[in-house]
Amino acid sequence: MLERFFSLAKNRAAAFGQPYVELWESLEANTTGGKRFRPRMVMCAYEALGGTDHEAAAYVGAAFELLHTALIVHDDVIDHDFVRRGAPNISGSYRDKATAEGASPAIAEHKGISAAVIAGDLALFNAYRLIDRSGVGDEMRYRLIEVMDEALFASAAGELIDVDFSTAVEMPRVDDILTMERLKTAVYSFECPLQAGAILAGAGEDVVQSLGDFGREIGIAYQIVDDLLGVFGTEAETGKTTIGDLREGKRTVMISYATSTPEWEGIRSLVGKADLTEAEAQHVREVLIASGARSFAQGLARYYGNRALARLAEPHIPLALRHELHPVADDVLSRVK
Amino acid sequence: MLERFFSLAKNRAAAFGQPYVELWESLEANTTGGKRFRPRMVMCAYEALGGTDHEAAAYVGAAFELLHTALIVHDDVIDHDFVRRGAPNISGSYRDKATAEGASPAIAEHKGISAAVIAGDLALFNAYRLIDRSGVGDEMRYRLIEVMDEALFASAAGELIDVDFSTAVEMPRVDDILTMERLKTAVYSFECPLQAGAILAGAGEDVVQSLGDFGREIGIAYQIVDDLLGVFGTEAETGKTTIGDLREGKRTVMISYATSTPEWEGIRSLVGKADLTEAEAQHVREVLIASGARSFAQGLARYYGNRALARLAEPHIPLALRHELHPVADDVLSRVK
Repeated sequence: MLERFFSLAKNRAAAFGQPYVELWESLEANTTGGKRFRPRMVMCAYEALGGTDHEAAAYVGAAFELLHTALIVHDDVIDHDFVRRGAPNISGSYRDKATAEGASPAIAEHKGISAAVIAGDLALFNAYRLIDRSGVGDEMRYRLIEVMDEALFASAAGELIDVDFSTAVEMPRVDDILTMERLKTAVYSFECPLQAGAILAGAGEDVVQSLGDFGREIGIAYQIVDDLLGVFGTEAETGKTTIGDLREGKRTVMISYATSTPEWEGIRSLVGKADLTEAEAQHVREVLIASGARSFAQGLARYYGNRALARLAEPHIPLALRHELHPVADDVLSRVK
Repeated sequence: MLERFFSLAKNRAAAFGQPYVELWESLEANTTGGKRFRPRMVMCAYEALGGTDHEAAAYVGAAFELLHTALIVHDDVIDHDFVRRGAPNISGSYRDKATAEGASPAIAEHKGISAAVIAGDLALFNAYRLIDRSGVGDEMRYRLIEVMDEALFASAAGELIDVDFSTAVEMPRVDDILTMERLKTAVYSFECPLQAGAILAGAGEDVVQSLGDFGREIGIAYQIVDDLLGVFGTEAETGKTTIGDLREGKRTVMISYATSTPEWEGIRSLVGKADLTEAEAQHVREVLIASGARSFAQGLARYYGNRALARLAEPHIPLALRHELHPVADDVLSRVK
């Protein structure tokens, strides 16, 4: 689906010159690199609920994937990141290309960020367009677009809160971090794709509602686990370094909890230290364990994971759906460590 | 139409906290400040061609206005601009607010740019949504969305070329500048809104085509005039300083032409001088006149303006449409000076 979409776009872009084709190629590379997690959520719900129009579901899944691409590309613009999961992102590859062509660092960076702003806009706009192209009727399209709108609306709100958090002097409270992470990522990654799949399959309101609730619980669990792995995982598991979050001073549930413990004084100057060494990071990890911050975050992740599983046990959830989504929750829970 | 849209959005945003409501207010302020030029283009074509569903046309007009807002907000992100037409834009107002709250310059700027990235995304996404909400049938909606997609597709291509121009060492040729300006601004400001209005009114393919051609010619003329006024206009006319473009070294048709004349050597070090004085600017203006660069640009603007008028004289253009659009072209031509 996305292959066809990008192939058409690239053909069309050719009329505007090779650099525009390259921008589309760069956007495509940033779309296909991922795990296609959101299309999988759409499909899970759709197929388990008896949907048979795979073409329409593929359009909707691809739309959520493009929304995801748009959001991470612009998130990297906001965070001034030129690398994602170890590889140059759009800003990074455009910056590196400009540098290789002799541009100054400031100009190379400007070109990188500009390309990412433009590419993200193209992805965002076309997320809508793919829903429109899915060929569903008016009432269905209307509902799907409302779900996607909810996804963007929440994500924008979460991104705004995140910017405030990242620049605030005080550490946000655990529950404020949970809210922010849910809005910024979980809503559009779990809740909305699952609900879109269910709506498309013609599921009843109660099932759609429960899927939203399931997505919410498991999405929060996922974020907590992701943050745990950002410090305690391995690069092989996560595709990112296990020192980056600590150097950045990323404000997570675990770190927020740690600040409330007496052990915090011993690592406060290390968390957020841009040139943190591996030995110092190891010390931080030990203190996070000793202070109980790690096990608090683990416990919270399990709590939300189990709440998600409880949703699946509700009587109106069809067996096929339960079977489809149980492994999704198990997968998150199995990564709690 | 846009009032209602923003009122709904702000109500909805309240659930996510006051800062999110303020972001929507900021976006609204940046939308309503303008001349509502694009909705006017939609309406001109629609009403002159006998359209009677004013509600639908208002939705389509509002959609193009939101598209415009999204594009200028993100254009300011790319250009690192914190001011538009003399007033703080979204980045500017968020930066100023953060500064007033004691943030460092770097953090204040970061907060400003972040808010603008997010706000532009919301505007862009909702441009599509307003088309969808217009209540037109499938075939019509499909065509309108294609037109809007064409608008964004072209604008993104133009923006990409503009970034390359602004960082290139060599001055681009006159015709390359015309292409860039057409793609970046004229397509979505003139061609596409006029065509959308005509399509919505049920006009024939020949009329839609001619309106696109008219929009293309007058849009190019408009850009040349705008660049002329950026140097020779008055602040009262344009709402912006007449020294900003010269300080920035903005690459316009007039400046590109000037570089090909022997007089260029005398002003080359002044065009793009960040601290250009008013006396130096006056000298540049005199040289632009003496070298013939100004009159070349004026002549080119008149040429495109007259070509636009010629399109209106085509036999299949209904009289009412001709009467509606003649003043649009006259207005552009009257500003050639």
